[in-house]
This record gives sequence, C-alpha cells and structure tokens, in this order.
Amino acid sequence: MPYQLHYWPGIQGRGEFVRLALEAAGAPYVDVARGEASAGQGVPALLQCLQDASNTRPPFACPVLVDGKKVIAQTAAILLYLGPRLKLVGASETDRLWTHQIQLTIADAVDQAHNTHHPVGSSLYYEDQKPEAERAAKEFRSQRMPKFLGWLETVLARNPKGDRHLVGARLSYADLSLFQLVEGLRYAFPRASGRALKKTPRVLALHERVAQQRRVAAYLRSERRIPFNEDGIFRRYPELDG
Amino acid sequence: MPYQLHYWPGIQGRGEFVRLALEAAGAPYVDVARGEASAGQGVPALLQCLQDASNTRPPFACPVLVDGKKVIAQTAAILLYLGPRLKLVGASETDRLWTHQIQLTIADAVDQAHNTHHPVGSSLYYEDQKPEAERAAKEFRSQRMPKFLGWLETVLARNPKGDRHLVGARLSYADLSLFQLVEGLRYAFPRASGRALKKTPRVLALHERVAQQRRVAAYLRSERRIPFNEDGIFRRYPELDG
Repeated sequence: MPYQLHYWPGIQGRGEFVRLALEAAGAPYVDVARGEASAGQGVPALLQCLQDASNTRPPFACPVLVDGKKVIAQTAAILLYLGPRLKLVGASETDRLWTHQIQLTIADAVDQAHNTHHPVGSSLYYEDQKPEAERAAKEFRSQRMPKFLGWLETVLARNPKGDRHLVGARLSYADLSLFQLVEGLRYAFPRASGRALKKTPRVLALHERVAQQRRVAAYLRSERRIPFNEDGIFRRYPELDG
Repeated sequence: MPYQLHYWPGIQGRGEFVRLALEAAGAPYVDVARGEASAGQGVPALLQCLQDASNTRPPFACPVLVDGKKVIAQTAAILLYLGPRLKLVGASETDRLWTHQIQLTIADAVDQAHNTHHPVGSSLYYEDQKPEAERAAKEFRSQRMPKFLGWLETVLARNPKGDRHLVGARLSYADLSLFQLVEGLRYAFPRASGRALKKTPRVLALHERVAQQRRVAAYLRSERRIPFNEDGIFRRYPELDG
C-alpha cells in the first residue's frame, strides 16, 4: 500500500522535506490533498485526517504521514520513521541519531526563515506585520543564516567519510533537507544567501549534487514539485532581502 | 560514568527538559557548566565542548549530552536517546515515535513562547523589541497557547490506557516536558495561562502528578532546580500577559 502524505496542496512548506525523501527513494505515495475530492482525496480528506475523532494519537498539524494504520505527524518524526524504511539513513543508532540531530537543526533554520515574514504570528497576514518583519529579516540575514550555513559547512568538512554527504558516505534525508533549505534561502533571499553561500562551498556543492540525483532531478522537473510562492515558508519579498 | 549535561548555568532553558528526565529517573549526571572551573567544569568546559575542533559531529548549540564518547545535541534528540536508557519511554517503535512526536510539538510551543519576548531576534535585548513583543504575545496568548494546551488535553482524553499519562500507562519524558511547559506558561503568563488551563483539567492534573513524583519533587525543592528568571525562555513581563 502506498504511503499517504497529507499536506496543504498549494505550497511546498514542511511537507516538502517528506516529499523529497519519498521521491529520492522512489517510494510509492499519494499526495492526498492534491488529489480529487471525487476520488476521496483533496482537502476534505486532509481535514478528515487532521480531525478524525477516532484517532487516539491525533496530529497537531500537517504534514501527516499515513502508513497503513500508523498516522505520524511532525516532519522530523516522519523522517525518523521513513529513514530506515527508505534507506535514507545509516544502520547504526549513532548514525541515525546524528542524522536526526542535523534534521532538527535544519528545522530550526526553517522556522527562523519563516519567522522573518511572520514575526508577530502566523494567524496575521504579512502585510499586517511588515515593520516587524523587516527587523526580523535583518537579524536573520546577518546573524542566523550565516551561522546555520556555517555549521553545515563544518559538518561536511569534518565528516570522516568525506565532504560529499553530511553523514557517512551515502545520501541521507539530512542531505535532502539541506538541499531544500538552500533552495528556499536562495528563493527568499537571493542576495543575502548568495553572499552567505560563497563562504560555504561544500554546502553549495552538496546542494548541486542532490539536485542532480536521478530521481530528485526528475521530481524537480515534474508537476509534482510545487513552485515556491508567497504562501509558503520561503517567500520572496525583496524588502526582506536587504 | 555519569552523564554530562552541558547547558548555560543561569537558566532552566531547554536544558531543563533534559535535567527533568535525568532527575526523574535518578540517573547520575554532572551539570557541567554549574561546576567549578578549578575542577575542570564551569562555563569554560561548556565552551570547550561546543567548540571542540576535533569533534566530527559538532553541536550547533546547547543543550549537549555527553555519554562516554557520544556527544549529542538538540533537546528532542537527547530525549530520544535517553528515553529507553532511563526507561522513560515505551518499548515499541510505535510508542517511541508517538512520544517523540509529542515532544516535538511541545518544543514548538516552547519556541513560540520564547518568540513572545524575542520576535525580532535572539541577539537583541527584549528592551529593543518591546512593541513587537506585545503584538507577538497577544497572538500567543489568544491563539497558540490555547491550541497547544487543547491538543495535549485531547491526547490525554483519548489515551486508551487512561488520562493519567500522555502515552500508555507509565511516566514518559513527554509527561515531564508537559510539566515543564505548564510550569513555564504559569510563570510567564500567570493570568492568560490560568484562563487557558481551566479548560484543560487533564493537563493540569498531569502537571500536578509529575510535580509530586518522588524524585521530581525532591529535585524541585533542591538547589539543582534553577528558579525561573528573565534570562530564560519563560519570562515574566507583566505587559506581555494582557
């Protein structure tokens, strides 16, 4: 039975980290909310999943992965679950924990990138928090983005198996998430990320290698990849790029 | 060999979620940065751990747990590692993943509580972002805090093993983290959290039970428990409590 991914249909968002893992592994999955309501899919199916009163382990929010009877939310927890099944993580507990630690740190970077356009709160429009957003974005561009990218560069530089992957000598879900983080930063902050990435050549090179992985490349060319837009986590507001 | 916990010595912060797990299990540990520099501890030892150039798996930030040769960062990853070792999580993969999913959701709530006093950025003082903080706190009080507490109430209400614990019929690290979240919200937002917690009696009752667990109670009375203060995640700024 294919995996079911439940995520908002119009954006990459946090669901994209799960999509990339499923796509890179060639795993069969249904992107439920993007299907037709007449086929029992679409947003109604997503809402039913979120609001299912019979679920004794209810998700707080999307993304949600359904694998048979299992219903798993929280991006990092989904990747923790999928990693071994999709062969996107090493076999040892130590490698799995380190890969997860990197994922959680990338998730922090993603949260902080989101915070640049919604520093006051997610329930308000960007237009209602623009002055706050300009200040938050300046902090992110000058302090946080270089720090996160610099840490990823160090992780690559110190990997005893070489700097082609974050963990060991094989592709992991952390590599895929690094790709998505860089892709998002380049979209949202083309100028600031360009400056920062000049100092992290290993990060940039890994981003390129992931983009060229056969299945990832096919996915990125397909209609399954939703283009970046100003409803997602990474938004191109030129006034926030300094 | 006792575990080593590395965290900033003056605040509970994210380190507290790890401390509570170690304390509730009665596990031997050293709170490194709170020791004496003359004994090879204190903040110099913490900084050495963070900056150790020979570490091929460097932490991005505190808290860091050292267990022999293993160096693990990210609060949720540390708890994922400690859970089985401290018997603070169920034995099955399903229970472990669900406990982790709850932990990650509590971590999101903690991040958003922190954001109320630092919406623009962590590198600036609260005093330099007060207008932004007032708006962010209003959002948090009215929207996010009730939503997170309501979800935890639902998790308790739907637990097939009863509403005394978040997962199964035994204490898990998620219960301890719920305790800390409630404790922090009550400190930072005494009025708003009072209103919200009236609607979540199961959350409140679990908070009380955790506080009365023998080892936790002894810890809370001890000097090892750092009092809340205005350098931590949960800060009492009356103007942010509505």
